[in-house]
Amino acid sequence: MKTVKIGLLGFGNVGGGAFHILSENKELIAKRTGVAAEVTRILQRNRNKKRLFAADPALLTEDPDDIIKAPDIDIVVEMIGGIEPATSFMCQAMENGKHVVSANKAAIAANYRLLTETARKNNVEFLFEASVAGGIPVLSALAGPLGANNFLEITGILNGTTNYILTKMTEEGLSYEEVLKDAQAKGFAEADPTADVEGIDAANKLSILIALAFGHYVAPDAIPTVGITGISAADIEAAENAGQKIKLLARASLREGMVEYLVAPAFLDKSHPLAGVNNEFNAVYVTGDMVGELMFYGRGAGPLPTGSAICGDIISIIRKRFSL
Amino acid sequence: MKTVKIGLLGFGNVGGGAFHILSENKELIAKRTGVAAEVTRILQRNRNKKRLFAADPALLTEDPDDIIKAPDIDIVVEMIGGIEPATSFMCQAMENGKHVVSANKAAIAANYRLLTETARKNNVEFLFEASVAGGIPVLSALAGPLGANNFLEITGILNGTTNYILTKMTEEGLSYEEVLKDAQAKGFAEADPTADVEGIDAANKLSILIALAFGHYVAPDAIPTVGITGISAADIEAAENAGQKIKLLARASLREGMVEYLVAPAFLDKSHPLAGVNNEFNAVYVTGDMVGELMFYGRGAGPLPTGSAICGDIISIIRKRFSL
Repeated sequence: MKTVKIGLLGFGNVGGGAFHILSENKELIAKRTGVAAEVTRILQRNRNKKRLFAADPALLTEDPDDIIKAPDIDIVVEMIGGIEPATSFMCQAMENGKHVVSANKAAIAANYRLLTETARKNNVEFLFEASVAGGIPVLSALAGPLGANNFLEITGILNGTTNYILTKMTEEGLSYEEVLKDAQAKGFAEADPTADVEGIDAANKLSILIALAFGHYVAPDAIPTVGITGISAADIEAAENAGQKIKLLARASLREGMVEYLVAPAFLDKSHPLAGVNNEFNAVYVTGDMVGELMFYGRGAGPLPTGSAICGDIISIIRKRFSL
Repeated sequence: MKTVKIGLLGFGNVGGGAFHILSENKELIAKRTGVAAEVTRILQRNRNKKRLFAADPALLTEDPDDIIKAPDIDIVVEMIGGIEPATSFMCQAMENGKHVVSANKAAIAANYRLLTETARKNNVEFLFEASVAGGIPVLSALAGPLGANNFLEITGILNGTTNYILTKMTEEGLSYEEVLKDAQAKGFAEADPTADVEGIDAANKLSILIALAFGHYVAPDAIPTVGITGISAADIEAAENAGQKIKLLARASLREGMVEYLVAPAFLDKSHPLAGVNNEFNAVYVTGDMVGELMFYGRGAGPLPTGSAICGDIISIIRKRFSL
């Protein structure tokens, strides 16, 4: 059986999750693709950090060049996070003929054109399903099976932390500050929650969705963005009384040929499918001119859901480039 | 620009919908794939039937061989419905080197192994996204981006007619018979609603989902199937009082390595995402060992949603076979 060699850049939660799936479901993936997908090197720069998943120490390296410039690596999976050095690593890997999979919404949203153009120039695949809505296969759907549609609107609940906070505020009548503290204690919110609660994370993901669905690139910092820090218990109660729910929505829509976009808390009628998306779940509501309304719902974060999307991209690349 | 020539078998509602999309969004599809997809022949056996969409009469033929044996057709789209002659037409088209797209759940469920095996032997693509849950791209998701998962459970609301009837019974407190009559008057239910209300349509679709997700073929008539004809207004009220909803569920799950399956009305807690799937909408709830729970929601029928899925399959085939 042919073997495809995979190098992982990053071995944090997401890197660990992807590695776990590639190990645990190795035979399943081989059976479904006819190709063995093998992780042969892992960049791990901090050896002392506690890890969720363990790897053979012989696989580990502290030098990114051992992966992005290694002649024996076919697919590079970038899971470092942050814009740099992640973007440079991805471009270098592509220039060295490697296909690239990434979960890094910040880097992709900031450098969408550079990254897709570098992939095109070097005739390599560049897939990033995991960068938006974690395990939910919405990017693949937009690019493939929905490809005969003009998209009219895309509305997403794209950030699990804020959706968890808004759900708890609604269900328990607590203030934003109380729920945030509790979410931080339980690990559902970061010690510095700025990127989540200010809507920056959602804007990164919306930028990627806009690029894919509408073929326009809008930099994430050009998307008008309002977070949830100003939402009070009284706002939630007012929404409840009006039969509505407050959700942080990332929305892009086509109005007279122009794409309009916004990340902001919004009132949603309780009968809307997005209103039932609670806790840390994500969902993307898509309207196409032919298919009408669709919703994709699932886990937007976590090592295994995110790892599932990464491995799905690896499978796509194997089928397209290594199965012939 | 390269042109891919498409022959349509059937020009009823679904055939008309697919034709409309291929005409209306011709430039969009060409821009996204780099290939022109052109319908060059249409099998229409009853010229006197009223049509939703019109085609140039020069494209029409009454002889299926003009499509399935024509040397200048690349992709055959089967939208005749029924097990025969649809299955024979598809096999003959494949034996003549044509890629086949089908929306025909009855034929695919009855002859899954024959059709997939014939495609394999003749090295042609065989795609059938439209056969399950209409415009919802769930088959593509199971086969592609979720391919690193062992599927643990698949539960679907797969029949729009019965979901419409159950929704109206719930919302308006009417009896099954009253709602059915109204649905027939509005065109949401067939004059002979047996295949829908007895769960046969859902069992066909579940058979296809089981084959894809679990790699087992189960004939649709081997799936224990109970329809909705026995549901009374009192049942609906009892469910309401218990905070639940009655839905016709098609479910397959893995229990100790065995696949269990059933189509039957079931009580669903109102907090379950499937409980909010109302009227003619469909949804498929998928649990994977890595990705966790996902739901795909949208329109399960209708010329344009079904046509959207057919055109998505055509795009996949173009990308895989004609874009190189």
